[in-house]
Amino acid sequence: MGDGRFQDNLQGLFDPRAVAVVGASGNPGKLGYHVLNSLIQGGFQGPIIPVNPGSGEILGLPTFPSVTAYGGEIDLAVIVLPAGQVAPVLEGCIQKGVKGMVLITAGFKEIDDPEGGALQSRLAELVRAAGVPVIGPNTFGMVNLHKNLNASFTPEFSRAEKGSIAVVSQSGGFSHLLAFMAMGQGVRLAKVVGLGNRLNVDFAEMVPYLIEDADTQVIVLYIEGLDHPRALMDAVEAGRGKKPIVVLKTGASTSGDRASLSHTGSIAGKQEIYEGALRQAGAICVRDSEDMLDVAQALSVCPLPQGPGVAILTAQAGPGMAACDVCEAEGLHVVPFRAESQASIDALLPPLAIRTNPVDMGPAWYSSFAIRGIVETVMDAEEVDGIILLMMFASANRTAVSDLSDVLYERRQKKPVVTCLVSPPGIWDGVVEKLGEARAIVNLPTPERAAKVMACLWRYKKMLKMKPGGKSGRY
Amino acid sequence: MGDGRFQDNLQGLFDPRAVAVVGASGNPGKLGYHVLNSLIQGGFQGPIIPVNPGSGEILGLPTFPSVTAYGGEIDLAVIVLPAGQVAPVLEGCIQKGVKGMVLITAGFKEIDDPEGGALQSRLAELVRAAGVPVIGPNTFGMVNLHKNLNASFTPEFSRAEKGSIAVVSQSGGFSHLLAFMAMGQGVRLAKVVGLGNRLNVDFAEMVPYLIEDADTQVIVLYIEGLDHPRALMDAVEAGRGKKPIVVLKTGASTSGDRASLSHTGSIAGKQEIYEGALRQAGAICVRDSEDMLDVAQALSVCPLPQGPGVAILTAQAGPGMAACDVCEAEGLHVVPFRAESQASIDALLPPLAIRTNPVDMGPAWYSSFAIRGIVETVMDAEEVDGIILLMMFASANRTAVSDLSDVLYERRQKKPVVTCLVSPPGIWDGVVEKLGEARAIVNLPTPERAAKVMACLWRYKKMLKMKPGGKSGRY
Repeated sequence: MGDGRFQDNLQGLFDPRAVAVVGASGNPGKLGYHVLNSLIQGGFQGPIIPVNPGSGEILGLPTFPSVTAYGGEIDLAVIVLPAGQVAPVLEGCIQKGVKGMVLITAGFKEIDDPEGGALQSRLAELVRAAGVPVIGPNTFGMVNLHKNLNASFTPEFSRAEKGSIAVVSQSGGFSHLLAFMAMGQGVRLAKVVGLGNRLNVDFAEMVPYLIEDADTQVIVLYIEGLDHPRALMDAVEAGRGKKPIVVLKTGASTSGDRASLSHTGSIAGKQEIYEGALRQAGAICVRDSEDMLDVAQALSVCPLPQGPGVAILTAQAGPGMAACDVCEAEGLHVVPFRAESQASIDALLPPLAIRTNPVDMGPAWYSSFAIRGIVETVMDAEEVDGIILLMMFASANRTAVSDLSDVLYERRQKKPVVTCLVSPPGIWDGVVEKLGEARAIVNLPTPERAAKVMACLWRYKKMLKMKPGGKSGRY
Repeated sequence: MGDGRFQDNLQGLFDPRAVAVVGASGNPGKLGYHVLNSLIQGGFQGPIIPVNPGSGEILGLPTFPSVTAYGGEIDLAVIVLPAGQVAPVLEGCIQKGVKGMVLITAGFKEIDDPEGGALQSRLAELVRAAGVPVIGPNTFGMVNLHKNLNASFTPEFSRAEKGSIAVVSQSGGFSHLLAFMAMGQGVRLAKVVGLGNRLNVDFAEMVPYLIEDADTQVIVLYIEGLDHPRALMDAVEAGRGKKPIVVLKTGASTSGDRASLSHTGSIAGKQEIYEGALRQAGAICVRDSEDMLDVAQALSVCPLPQGPGVAILTAQAGPGMAACDVCEAEGLHVVPFRAESQASIDALLPPLAIRTNPVDMGPAWYSSFAIRGIVETVMDAEEVDGIILLMMFASANRTAVSDLSDVLYERRQKKPVVTCLVSPPGIWDGVVEKLGEARAIVNLPTPERAAKVMACLWRYKKMLKMKPGGKSGRY
């Protein structure tokens, strides 16, 4: 499905001029209500066309009995009808010349009844010749934030901030989870796409589209089972070095694998084999949902470290030790400073401080001059590839983060700066958020998560340095 | 230092009738200002006595030139003076008959200069005969929330909600981190204590005190290096089965170990040996700061599971799969339901749903009757020792959590219920918070963290079931 027309149509699906909702409803007890509501509340700028033979108007919009009854062009049809009614609607949409569809309806390949799988095959056959991509069935839909397009049953997706991370997921629940986590942590998203049963849009189709998509810089895939693993590996391999692809694969457990089959009709399969192949192809495999969002956020914000050498600058020794432990366990090197870097740090800190790496800047709390100087020193130090900056609020260091923000801003994107700047709610949030928006730092809630993310950035960089097909490390 | 008088004095230190701040200052550039401010803002109900020979009044309180110059009783003296001035003040405090001291001053055993260690030894000698406990030196202080006592340089500690978790830490930075994380996650604390260089109050003294302390139900220890490991192991062993003791030990890395020595004057030492001994003694060793708070919160809220059997009830299959993977990897058993439990779940869910464990309650979103029924079934099912309940908000399940809250509330404390109920900010927060306050659930931000915590509860229970000194598993 990677051919040109299909990919062009995918482009139209995500950036449609007009959207029809087939099965739109005025009844809040129906998904057809929520889908229409999402499109309206999401602020989509083109025509929104509710299709329902039974009503004259829904949510203030005139309805049409069918897509073909609508006079203008329709690029995207979102279908929320019972499974048995879908086939003729698909035919109508093809006839109408839609670029793509989102098929929210469940009750296909994922159900126990073999008739579900058979019906899904018939639908796939219907759209094959037309080369029309269909997201779903059995999906919450999809959201393209940059186009204010919320083609899902959850209007709240539109609350996510616009950014460069595209989430593609085999699970609606995971999509919701990641989007809500992103809202809570100020992580900015480009798209959220629920693949569901993957009628003809699978990960292997989404990856090439997103590699080309100007709004997307980081691709996040949540995978349960793969029907065509080879196609995905090829797509990831083709994208190697173009945009980072972060993968979370579940289904390692027997109970999880069992659930996968019933979920989207695919066996999750051998975890290690898939993960190994994905890494070999150039993907970044992560451990869990939290790791996934942390890594995606860092990749969307930070330049990559050029080597494993990190400087740990900490306002308090304890969090620095926790970060050291993780750095060393994960393949980073808490580098000894070269003589000249060490000399300039020594000149800035009182004799009682820990001045070697990790640097305890605690004694410099009151001196924004010293803290700035230390950060500048490691920014310029050749031996330092990445900076982990840890600071817990105490009344005596209230202004420390804002005192630092100029130097962090001025030297942003020189080296990755992963921070853990933590205060009681409401004290440092504003300045930390601004630094994040300026892509000067990525801020994480714990020192361990900051260190883990830096290690992941380095593993990714190391992988990019290797020749494709070469020996693959863990990244 | 575990003798009766010392422990009685420790009691007085944490619940003083009156508190003096020696080195109180009106200058916000001094720690002596922040300490006095913390006590006042924290709402301490007894007399607060600023001691400073130079001023008549600080922050509206009359000052005294020395503790002995004050006419009334003083139970706690908080000392914020340069290291060289501390010894005579300690003597004055003992003469005055204080129960305990908090020595915030740094510049003792942790510094490069051997004079620092010598000075600390002299101070220890001074207080030894008097049996007066001294928290510190080189500490931010301590906070006893239930007594509105904020004897630290950070007034914001008093924003933490009152609860039953006592945090004892060798790192001020970690104490701040955990307290601010707790505020952000609604985790309730009893005390936060920074041990610093441990003049004569070490973990081994704090553990027996907290075991007896009525306000404390869960003890959290952040450890870098141990000067007297045997004493701590004995204290933990003596507390086995009385209150859970959660330990995070850092310093596994060479760079971290190096930092530990300079931090509070102790070598962190062999990580595996300490962790092994701590587990053997009955402590719960955790991986990182996040894990530490999650586990402490769960222990403060949930009853312990009686076995490894969990039911995973999920509103969306994907998060359920992620939880399954973690459960199985961490030693829990996603149990097959017995015939009667399965029959009652089958009766509640439509045929298309995943009805075996993990149960996909998605198809019952609209039926609070079905969701309640499923939760009740697993609450009553003999084969289920703990319940993991996962639900991501979607517009169609908006009322699902409040529909469930009665049944969760009614059956609270029957079995541990660890949840991951996630919505965009502001939608489910209120009801989730109320359920947490009622100790009906512990809610965590991801399905993986929910599963990890349940596994930790079970490992702890399993350890309690074993005979002391018996074979120790990982918990």
